[in-house]
Amino acid sequence: MHRPLAHDDPTTALLALILAGGRLAPRRRLLIDCGDAVSALAAGRARWQAAGLDRRQCQALLAPDADALAHARQWLAASPQHRLISLVDDAFPALLAHAPEPPLGLFVAGDADLLWQPMVAIVGSRSATPSGQAIAGNLARQLCARQLCVASGLAAGIDAAAHRASLQVAGNSVAVVGTGLDRCYPAGHRHMQDQLVQHGAVISEYAPGTPPRAGNFPARNRLLAGLSLAVIVVEAAQRSGAMITARLASEAGREVFAVPGSPLNPLSRGCNRLLRDGAGLLESIDDLLPTLPPLLRLLGTSLPGQALDPASADTLPPVLVSGPVLDETEQRQVWQALDLIGVDLDELGQRSGLTVARLSAILLDLELAGWALQTHGRWQRAPTPPSTTASIDAG
Amino acid sequence: MHRPLAHDDPTTALLALILAGGRLAPRRRLLIDCGDAVSALAAGRARWQAAGLDRRQCQALLAPDADALAHARQWLAASPQHRLISLVDDAFPALLAHAPEPPLGLFVAGDADLLWQPMVAIVGSRSATPSGQAIAGNLARQLCARQLCVASGLAAGIDAAAHRASLQVAGNSVAVVGTGLDRCYPAGHRHMQDQLVQHGAVISEYAPGTPPRAGNFPARNRLLAGLSLAVIVVEAAQRSGAMITARLASEAGREVFAVPGSPLNPLSRGCNRLLRDGAGLLESIDDLLPTLPPLLRLLGTSLPGQALDPASADTLPPVLVSGPVLDETEQRQVWQALDLIGVDLDELGQRSGLTVARLSAILLDLELAGWALQTHGRWQRAPTPPSTTASIDAG
Repeated sequence: MHRPLAHDDPTTALLALILAGGRLAPRRRLLIDCGDAVSALAAGRARWQAAGLDRRQCQALLAPDADALAHARQWLAASPQHRLISLVDDAFPALLAHAPEPPLGLFVAGDADLLWQPMVAIVGSRSATPSGQAIAGNLARQLCARQLCVASGLAAGIDAAAHRASLQVAGNSVAVVGTGLDRCYPAGHRHMQDQLVQHGAVISEYAPGTPPRAGNFPARNRLLAGLSLAVIVVEAAQRSGAMITARLASEAGREVFAVPGSPLNPLSRGCNRLLRDGAGLLESIDDLLPTLPPLLRLLGTSLPGQALDPASADTLPPVLVSGPVLDETEQRQVWQALDLIGVDLDELGQRSGLTVARLSAILLDLELAGWALQTHGRWQRAPTPPSTTASIDAG
Repeated sequence: MHRPLAHDDPTTALLALILAGGRLAPRRRLLIDCGDAVSALAAGRARWQAAGLDRRQCQALLAPDADALAHARQWLAASPQHRLISLVDDAFPALLAHAPEPPLGLFVAGDADLLWQPMVAIVGSRSATPSGQAIAGNLARQLCARQLCVASGLAAGIDAAAHRASLQVAGNSVAVVGTGLDRCYPAGHRHMQDQLVQHGAVISEYAPGTPPRAGNFPARNRLLAGLSLAVIVVEAAQRSGAMITARLASEAGREVFAVPGSPLNPLSRGCNRLLRDGAGLLESIDDLLPTLPPLLRLLGTSLPGQALDPASADTLPPVLVSGPVLDETEQRQVWQALDLIGVDLDELGQRSGLTVARLSAILLDLELAGWALQTHGRWQRAPTPPSTTASIDAG
């Protein structure tokens, strides 16, 4: 009789759970019920079966694939930029955690903090027209100019145009891929993937070593949808991955936008179909911004350690209606420099004209008073300031 | 003191009313209140003033412009295809009569019966792209294939493409113009106008001799909207005549459709704006057909001599749900050949395989039983057949 492996190391335990393969839902149930991967593996066969794991999965937990495990551990150790974030870890992005079917963990190469930034996905056809690629590029640049992160799938066509434009303007871009992060698909995008690792992030739910498999790409789309506040479809055939991403985004409660196109362009069919079905019509990012605050609030109220209040996610933060009344000039300056999305200290310094030291002190005041909040080193206006008429106690 | 001219001739009287110019509403009130133009002119100054006519208009009725009157009469006499149809005449198209701000009369060159046929307007930019013109042409051909009449404004760009395509497939097309029918604007469209007179109709509310005036073109748009069951906008700038036509159509309770276009095409702005504002997204005529039956019913129930029932215009005729049960094979054949829009006997003969004599007899039976109706020589299914389960008394 095998006995459960005593994986004291959380990473090894999570890898074993991921590498076990098969149906995801039972493994996720086990992980969540047990609280962490080490406990999940220690729980034993009876508990595994109770969570719904089949014989093959139980067998894989008893005797994990040593080579695959070693390969994944080796990849994780190869760079400080390589991480595996467990679904039950506070660092796991809140939006994805609250979307349907979250993965057991996320492999990240690059800046994992980006996963907490407000992200908008740009998706579309691999065989996009030059116009479609130009539109995707324009939209990506507009998102970056608003300090929103551009998410896409590293595929040819629209995806590549969106990532490329983000990199060109030194904006934030995240690629969600359907292979292990030591692979690259399509192979010709290796340089782009490297650039994204360096200046953004590339993520996957698949362990290093996982080759491109057709079946994994629709699953990749659900990650893209789950991580994003909104999905923009630019040129897509009626049946395409982009349409799947749009459907999944809609099911996850995210905003779906489509760029309209001429009936003479076959790649407009999917977008025009989405418009008929109620997607927002998008010509520029200005069409999307007014829809984001409720979802930004979702992001804001689901910070680690806080319970998500789904009911509150439907109302516009009052801050959009009128700013607070501050009695200190400097506080007012800083408040005005803050946005509803996170901004780093350097940018805030430039916006406010204050020194970083002074800025930090004022931000702390604003945070204590409930006017501002900080997430992963970026500051933003609190989605629900205490009152729009009260002044702040500067003490 | 002048005394009212004793115009015994209804045409002369109506021309005098039209040529009086100035505000339209008081003259229309006078015409409708008095029942016809002869009575309106005979009514005298006190009645004219009570209807709201100003001093200048009263003066013009007392002493009409003899030259303009003679010119208009001369034009009307020049061809049997030239007509002037009074608003209070049974031949005046019902849809336009029930739209806001109908004109006092319609000058028609060509086939006046076409004004009673179901009509769809195709409008758009004068500086349309080749793609836009191709789309307008495709849509016009699709409308003609469904035996719907194509209405437009004889302008350059989209209008011309729609008229041209209709003429090419020998379909029905009506041009609504903003000048007298002895003029042509733009001058280069003289040949197209002649073709439309010969194979369709060209109409105007302005008396022969009226030159192109910028102020008359928005008014022309309201006629186009009022005559049509639906308006399709293909490529339009945000501020343009086509957008005005769309607004007027919407105000008249007509369906408004817009063809989506790329954000990179400045002439898509207007269309995409309309889509945001709730216009139907149209890629082909199939998108429009399901919306027509309620309006066809409006056309059907407002035949001369019948009262319009606005309440009934909002429900779909039951005939769309299920056809009637006929116990005679030939009746069934004819019923199946009939459409919800008018079809002529030749076409019905081809569809049913019956001789015209036999067809006429059966159509008469169907008409008497309330299953079919005839308007201006074209047959169609009655919008509200007596019952979808009863059989017809063939007697």
